[in-house]
Amino acid sequence: MLILLTNDDGIRAPGLVAMYRELVKLGDVTVVAPETVQSATGHGITIATPLLTQQVNVEGVFTGTAVDGRPADCVKLAVNQLLPRQPDLVISGINSGANVGINVIYSGTVAAAIEAAFLGLPAIATSLYLRNDKPIDYARTAHFARKSIEQILAAGLKGGQVCSVNLPPLNADEQPTGMKVVRQCYRAWNDTYEERKDPRGKSYYWNTSVFRLGETEDDTDVAALRDGYITITPLQFDLTHYPQLHEWQGREWKA
Amino acid sequence: MLILLTNDDGIRAPGLVAMYRELVKLGDVTVVAPETVQSATGHGITIATPLLTQQVNVEGVFTGTAVDGRPADCVKLAVNQLLPRQPDLVISGINSGANVGINVIYSGTVAAAIEAAFLGLPAIATSLYLRNDKPIDYARTAHFARKSIEQILAAGLKGGQVCSVNLPPLNADEQPTGMKVVRQCYRAWNDTYEERKDPRGKSYYWNTSVFRLGETEDDTDVAALRDGYITITPLQFDLTHYPQLHEWQGREWKA
Repeated sequence: MLILLTNDDGIRAPGLVAMYRELVKLGDVTVVAPETVQSATGHGITIATPLLTQQVNVEGVFTGTAVDGRPADCVKLAVNQLLPRQPDLVISGINSGANVGINVIYSGTVAAAIEAAFLGLPAIATSLYLRNDKPIDYARTAHFARKSIEQILAAGLKGGQVCSVNLPPLNADEQPTGMKVVRQCYRAWNDTYEERKDPRGKSYYWNTSVFRLGETEDDTDVAALRDGYITITPLQFDLTHYPQLHEWQGREWKA
Repeated sequence: MLILLTNDDGIRAPGLVAMYRELVKLGDVTVVAPETVQSATGHGITIATPLLTQQVNVEGVFTGTAVDGRPADCVKLAVNQLLPRQPDLVISGINSGANVGINVIYSGTVAAAIEAAFLGLPAIATSLYLRNDKPIDYARTAHFARKSIEQILAAGLKGGQVCSVNLPPLNADEQPTGMKVVRQCYRAWNDTYEERKDPRGKSYYWNTSVFRLGETEDDTDVAALRDGYITITPLQFDLTHYPQLHEWQGREWKA
């Protein structure tokens, strides 16, 4: 099995290195990932400038291709140019931070996986929920991520299918509550900004939003991750609002 | 009616200026838009750095706030900090380039509108399909965009609802074929890259994909825009793949 591994935290990110160490147990792994951190870049792509690349060795663990582009660029370029053949699986992550709720739409990690699905490949995004009161253990998280990936492959993940796996942070003596297939929560987070003045009196603003997994319906990714589950959410990329579409198609429209 | 106008081509883009001139016929218009071009940035947001702002006068037509951030940042910041009250409508565009098919997912223009819907506001993204063999007339496009917006408001666009309007390029003596409510086409485009060597022998790659509205099902945005219609696509932002969700929920998963 040929696996393409990418992320949005950059090719040297510890979450990617840990995921690499686990994925080599499943097949041959090629890493094509952004040169620099691309968090919250969403599903951006690079058209107006060329994509520069370089081979980099990361911690003696692997040699991969660093691309000065976005996560979706890495997938496009790898599949079109860099890989010897179509990969059998595309993995993105492990992202430093949860990608649940509407974060799914902001996420470069998820965008890379969706891009792979556009290209007809099976793809899985993986993300670790960070909490101040819990340790960050990528090695252990990657172990659970691999177990999730194995079960998703066993369930049958076809070309063009994509899902997002979120993993809870755990104390050394803790286990995940379980593994759960859940829908995306689409409630808005509570956004806040702090206004400051620059030395010349012009306003600038810091985003001060804190990402908290609060109250939500029990069947969502947000609730299950908060409750310590590993969450699996199958994704699609048709944004059409069908009930509205059908209602509006019943009206007369004039150009 | 208070209207927030933003875009992803930058506050000085001719498409935004033309849209402004039409929107003032519908209400008070406040412009908060990116300082620089943000095309294909997808739904990125800015967290690690502050958002610098400045007041700019554009062509003597309006004074608005330029933000050194992404389209979604502009909407968040405007709604949270800059506007005197919640806007009654958020308009994004007119984008220089169509946002149909899977481009919907790459589009900063659409991301701004979706962000507004996250925040509970009614929002419409507007985009002009560019063709080499047709003139670019933003004033005339904005006229048709306003007519579309008026009809969408008459149909009832509630807070949290969002749709994308795409407009065909027209010769001076041409009219749109009509106005059509259509679903998003989710076929992949045909991606291509060209490899070059830098003066030191390292590979770099240009994306050489050409965006063509080719063969597709007749009920899609891609087909209708190709055939000269103004297209309206109601959007949603729950990416859950429900059939897959229900199938996988029937299986046993082990953490």
